[in-house]
Amino acid sequence: MKLNKNFNNLTENYLFAEVAERTKKYADAHPDKKIIKLGIGDVTLPLVPAVIKAMHEAVDDMSSSETFKGYGPYEGYSFLRQSIKNYYAGFGVDVEEDEIFVNDGAKSALANILDLFGKDNVVLVTDPVYPVYVDTNVIDGRKVILADATEENGFLPMPDYSVKADIIYICSPNNPTGAAYTEAQLAAWVDYALKCGAVILYDAAYECFIEDETFVRSIFAVEGAKRCAIELCSFSKTAGFTGTRCGYTVVPKGIESDGMNLNKTWFRRQATKFNGVSYIVQKGAAAVYTEEGKAQIKKNIDYYKRNAKLIADCMDRLGIWYTGGKNSPYIWLKCPHGMDSWQFFDYLLNNAQVVGTPGVGFGKNGEGFFRLTAFGSEKLTEEAIARIEKLLSE
Amino acid sequence: MKLNKNFNNLTENYLFAEVAERTKKYADAHPDKKIIKLGIGDVTLPLVPAVIKAMHEAVDDMSSSETFKGYGPYEGYSFLRQSIKNYYAGFGVDVEEDEIFVNDGAKSALANILDLFGKDNVVLVTDPVYPVYVDTNVIDGRKVILADATEENGFLPMPDYSVKADIIYICSPNNPTGAAYTEAQLAAWVDYALKCGAVILYDAAYECFIEDETFVRSIFAVEGAKRCAIELCSFSKTAGFTGTRCGYTVVPKGIESDGMNLNKTWFRRQATKFNGVSYIVQKGAAAVYTEEGKAQIKKNIDYYKRNAKLIADCMDRLGIWYTGGKNSPYIWLKCPHGMDSWQFFDYLLNNAQVVGTPGVGFGKNGEGFFRLTAFGSEKLTEEAIARIEKLLSE
Repeated sequence: MKLNKNFNNLTENYLFAEVAERTKKYADAHPDKKIIKLGIGDVTLPLVPAVIKAMHEAVDDMSSSETFKGYGPYEGYSFLRQSIKNYYAGFGVDVEEDEIFVNDGAKSALANILDLFGKDNVVLVTDPVYPVYVDTNVIDGRKVILADATEENGFLPMPDYSVKADIIYICSPNNPTGAAYTEAQLAAWVDYALKCGAVILYDAAYECFIEDETFVRSIFAVEGAKRCAIELCSFSKTAGFTGTRCGYTVVPKGIESDGMNLNKTWFRRQATKFNGVSYIVQKGAAAVYTEEGKAQIKKNIDYYKRNAKLIADCMDRLGIWYTGGKNSPYIWLKCPHGMDSWQFFDYLLNNAQVVGTPGVGFGKNGEGFFRLTAFGSEKLTEEAIARIEKLLSE
Repeated sequence: MKLNKNFNNLTENYLFAEVAERTKKYADAHPDKKIIKLGIGDVTLPLVPAVIKAMHEAVDDMSSSETFKGYGPYEGYSFLRQSIKNYYAGFGVDVEEDEIFVNDGAKSALANILDLFGKDNVVLVTDPVYPVYVDTNVIDGRKVILADATEENGFLPMPDYSVKADIIYICSPNNPTGAAYTEAQLAAWVDYALKCGAVILYDAAYECFIEDETFVRSIFAVEGAKRCAIELCSFSKTAGFTGTRCGYTVVPKGIESDGMNLNKTWFRRQATKFNGVSYIVQKGAAAVYTEEGKAQIKKNIDYYKRNAKLIADCMDRLGIWYTGGKNSPYIWLKCPHGMDSWQFFDYLLNNAQVVGTPGVGFGKNGEGFFRLTAFGSEKLTEEAIARIEKLLSE
């Protein structure tokens, strides 16, 4: 056999391992100190009661011959796809049920969607970037080029017509920077994609954090996007499904290339390589869209938003430059006193016992920046902020 | 963008669509006739009480901050991997916990495992074949060659050293033929793989139907297999998880090629492209291995085995040649009176109102053969068998 040697081109990313190691070393040396972690990208609030209730009912369905569910539809149950369609309609975006494909989470979906594309496409990602966009393409052997996201452009690079890209990743609100494109900025990207014959892979995993109407919850709110964009969404951050696993991809019917229709090809891919998401999980996901579920979910998201605001307000008081904090669970801050990312990591850990994520771990443009997240508990976030403010006001 | 044009090389398989259409046409024309379907590959018995209980508990875990589970390990929770390791130990096969990777089912796993291999490998499958083996490789652009499974070799082709293959698919007990390789026959395949530097992708989805000690439940029972084989397993047929979605892949640590270790590379692949299986589903799967769970599961499998024996005994009385029926939920029979697969389909539908699957739908060597399955209810299987016996005894 011949192995896929592209794996040798992956760069080892020791970011979170290094964070864990330095944190452990400090904790071992200072057993009396209470460390607060604001580095995590995982949710902490439990699933809401409506979802729990729906999953208990679904488990019961599986216990009797009359209601038992075997193989489900590759593309997901209609009850969930209809709910998703209605959710989009709620913010004025029209997607058809047969454009929605339920999956086991955005990470698998981001990897799997690449089956649609040849290896000879040029892939454009931002720097800093969520590493999955890069690594999945490296495994396939595609060329990856970088668009600089910097303080100057607010970590929101705009299209450069001198650069030719075939596949463009946009994550908005962004992980790790928390920055979100406005509708007008997204329209410029859609324009570029249509003119260049490129496809946009739009990661909308954090859309539920958007509160400002200058921003859109879906790229399909932008005219023309249904001819050039695929949208990837997740229940992970919306409804706390990181350990429950469910997401969905919207592949519009209007994208054609090389005589192939992307929606039809994607259906064929899923029918060949996937057997659907657990019925129990899909029932839980559908409960997110009930009146009860929506109210409960809103409370959870508001909780995280309050944490984000606590952190952002503290940065404002300290006069520290940042992106995110609003419309996003992430605060991407410029390290004070000219410290680099790891210097600031050590400084915060040693002097405030707060752990965050060094920005340089997400790309070279992340050097000198630092990510804090809103997914901790309110109490610990408040305490962490008090410590940071005290330290940086000294 | 350039699309993956390999999709154009997929052959449309209308097998199940054609079965459904002919069945519907007959049903519409004969509303008074009761049709019995013995064509389905899906289970019909509900999940066992131990699994239901474990999943309810897991749902409750997700409802409180103290027990909530966010992102789990890419490779699956240790509680489940330890149970799987012990299951293997129970039939004398030693696999390590870090050789076991939990996934969302064998179909995804069969597709994803191909990420490990270059596109320049030659793939060997049997004819007839489970179409997923072929289609997943066609999408990747690999060359697929066929090993003839025929009445002469009992639908169990043996290695041909004049044929050079890099990736070999073995499904035993087989879908669709129900035929199972003996330990000695598998040893010949392992020998061939080791001599040719090939890898065996061993689909053990039906291992729980094995009752005869001439057969092994895992290819790793064969000396040397840990240096050349990857095993893909599923809870679908073992525990009725077709709609619950869970499986696992065993990638031994002892396979190296091109300076790469397959187990380590697979871990890297999963870490990059997968975020684990739902905690709730993994808890359910682990309950399959409890004393209570094992006893309940055995009852279900015995139920399907009885159905298989009912069908096989009928074929014996009728003097019809078949494979499977024992150590397998499938009965692969030679159509009587020289009928071809579709002729026999229509004959059975029109005269006994029983629906099965025409063998030719699985490959050219399936012509003249027909698949019946044991996954129906006992009562309907008995009635179907009575009708078939009456018809074919006339």
